[in-house]
Amino acid sequence: MKTNVVVSLISFLLTATLFSQPKVVVLVAYYSEKGHTKALAEAVAGGAQSESGVTVLLKSVSEATTQEVLLADAIIVGSPVFNAAVAPPVQQFINSWPFKDSPLQNKIGAAFATGGGISAGEEMVQLSILRSMLIFGMVVAGGPEWTTPFGASAVTAETPFDSQNVSLRPEFLKKGRLLGERIALLAKRMKGVHP
Amino acid sequence: MKTNVVVSLISFLLTATLFSQPKVVVLVAYYSEKGHTKALAEAVAGGAQSESGVTVLLKSVSEATTQEVLLADAIIVGSPVFNAAVAPPVQQFINSWPFKDSPLQNKIGAAFATGGGISAGEEMVQLSILRSMLIFGMVVAGGPEWTTPFGASAVTAETPFDSQNVSLRPEFLKKGRLLGERIALLAKRMKGVHP
Amino acid sequence: MKTNVVVSLISFLLTATLFSQPKVVVLVAYYSEKGHTKALAEAVAGGAQSESGVTVLLKSVSEATTQEVLLADAIIVGSPVFNAAVAPPVQQFINSWPFKDSPLQNKIGAAFATGGGISAGEEMVQLSILRSMLIFGMVVAGGPEWTTPFGASAVTAETPFDSQNVSLRPEFLKKGRLLGERIALLAKRMKGVHP
Amino acid sequence: MKTNVVVSLISFLLTATLFSQPKVVVLVAYYSEKGHTKALAEAVAGGAQSESGVTVLLKSVSEATTQEVLLADAIIVGSPVFNAAVAPPVQQFINSWPFKDSPLQNKIGAAFATGGGISAGEEMVQLSILRSMLIFGMVVAGGPEWTTPFGASAVTAETPFDSQNVSLRPEFLKKGRLLGERIALLAKRMKGVHP
Repeated sequence: MKTNVVVSLISFLLTATLFSQPKVVVLVAYYSEKGHTKALAEAVAGGAQSESGVTVLLKSVSEATTQEVLLADAIIVGSPVFNAAVAPPVQQFINSWPFKDSPLQNKIGAAFATGGGISAGEEMVQLSILRSMLIFGMVVAGGPEWTTPFGASAVTAETPFDSQNVSLRPEFLKKGRLLGERIALLAKRMKGVHP
Repeated sequence: MKTNVVVSLISFLLTATLFSQPKVVVLVAYYSEKGHTKALAEAVAGGAQSESGVTVLLKSVSEATTQEVLLADAIIVGSPVFNAAVAPPVQQFINSWPFKDSPLQNKIGAAFATGGGISAGEEMVQLSILRSMLIFGMVVAGGPEWTTPFGASAVTAETPFDSQNVSLRPEFLKKGRLLGERIALLAKRMKGVHP
Repeated sequence: MKTNVVVSLISFLLTATLFSQPKVVVLVAYYSEKGHTKALAEAVAGGAQSESGVTVLLKSVSEATTQEVLLADAIIVGSPVFNAAVAPPVQQFINSWPFKDSPLQNKIGAAFATGGGISAGEEMVQLSILRSMLIFGMVVAGGPEWTTPFGASAVTAETPFDSQNVSLRPEFLKKGRLLGERIALLAKRMKGVHP
Repeated sequence: MKTNVVVSLISFLLTATLFSQPKVVVLVAYYSEKGHTKALAEAVAGGAQSESGVTVLLKSVSEATTQEVLLADAIIVGSPVFNAAVAPPVQQFINSWPFKDSPLQNKIGAAFATGGGISAGEEMVQLSILRSMLIFGMVVAGGPEWTTPFGASAVTAETPFDSQNVSLRPEFLKKGRLLGERIALLAKRMKGVHP
């Protein structure tokens, strides 16, 4: 009957809405020499992965391709602090992004950084990455808490931090996870994907 | 007949979708002593107003209320450059925003600035405002073009600009309008309001 | 005899050189609500005072006068972090400095900051103060060690720091002292006063 | 006679003072793709050269050696704006400077930048270079006028500037010369060389 047709139609529409949901892609790209930034990148990626409907690409800046940059709904870039600035391979990666016709416009952007000492450039590096993202028309955000305003940062060597530890302290890894979670959520929201 | 019922239902749903659209509110708040920043604020507000379904509140920082800050889906803040920094009344306005429980989380934020000379603090002021917004958990963006990466800026006095003119040059006002348009669009998108 | 005259002359010149040495004045100006920035200011002032031939003025920004700003050979300004930015009373103090005819040109400038969390604005505040100083033609510097690149900073509340403690941790106070010492030395050198 | 001896002695001392003056060395290092930053570098070098007793080394960042960096009393670094950041070859040059035992401590540092548009990264690049210099313990300064607060900058493409012109507009070249002059003077003063 006609009722059945209507019910079927509604059912079809609901199903289509649920299952044709476009996957949201989060690219986490980092540069790491000693492993600290890689460890933080893994925490960020883990946070993003914990959101449903999200595909995470975790890549070093030399592995990440332009296709992946274009595919991503959110890009989270991490760098160690080199003389208060972004590591050159990270900046070169950013500079390789396509600019003409603004293909990165409205993608979500975020940043993370690792440095040796407190107030020794971690803020600078996070904000330098965010500024470059603004140049590409991206929409940028930090983490979800007052301890992660500009993204996520980790300090590896200054007291009272244990310089013997190779791995990052848990509180810094937690900042990374929180950042990944929030950016995945924002990417879904910006893409109109319902949580 | 049943056909009529279906048609009515579809009609109702369409109408509800169109008219129950939540209005998107854009707050443009500025501080101005000589009128330059006010002129740029008006251009920003005009750009935002040109988007359908957007209510624009244009207020000086002393007029804007906490209720309006909380109501807004996007906040665009403008300041003259004072010694490479945000004017204190603007910073005081920002510092008055509620912080506890992050009520500004996920609002869209943007900035504009007016300064006397080229490279004399306009970038600093825009980025300082954006950084403060990040502290509140806002999601920040610049304008839509390569000439408006951090928001909108206007230079009022250095050659080759005419220092006699009271009003801002048209190319700077255009940057303001473009910023207003983009931020209104982003606010709609972030709120799930279809363009 | 003539020998005596020469000896006397040399003696006089030496004495005059030693005792007519212009005193170098270092102004340490701060704003503090909870006492943290005041504690760091005292450490900075103590460091500067430890240098011979240096007069230190330690003042809150509401106490410091324009005359003292003009008298100082070095100005060290400290602020708590308020939403990633300098506290408005500190910026108002800076904005009160005389600008016309550049009377602050070539004075040494430095900064210090206290904030609640790691990478939550301490770098921003130090660099914002330094940028404003550059506007006045000042010559700016940080502390003498890799842990004090932009001046001195202290983190008061985030783990692994003890939030119960009212006073700043010793490692942060040490940064303040080091900054004060270096800036006093630089002021002497810039003024041509031999150590 | 004794009088003659005294006169001779004074004469000798005066001569020695005048002629044994240590030469002050200013290194101007730049990276340039289209020639704009090179043109600004030449203006900076010309300004520094106009000061007596100053040797200027004008080098691209690939030509400048670590020995020259160590020899210099002042280092002025210039970069085009690449996505709101320092060009990677410039950052790599800075990252090549010796850090251990702070051999660059107390050298004077300054920066200049060229960019396509107004408020599109020129401030960022100048300040990013200055921040890196602070990491090395350098003492940094801008130009001598309110139009050159962070060094020198030139805008090459945005209206109302003529994009057809290959060479920089005279007002930007003047900023470069002023910066070179001031930094040479500061380097002499910091080294105790009398003007």
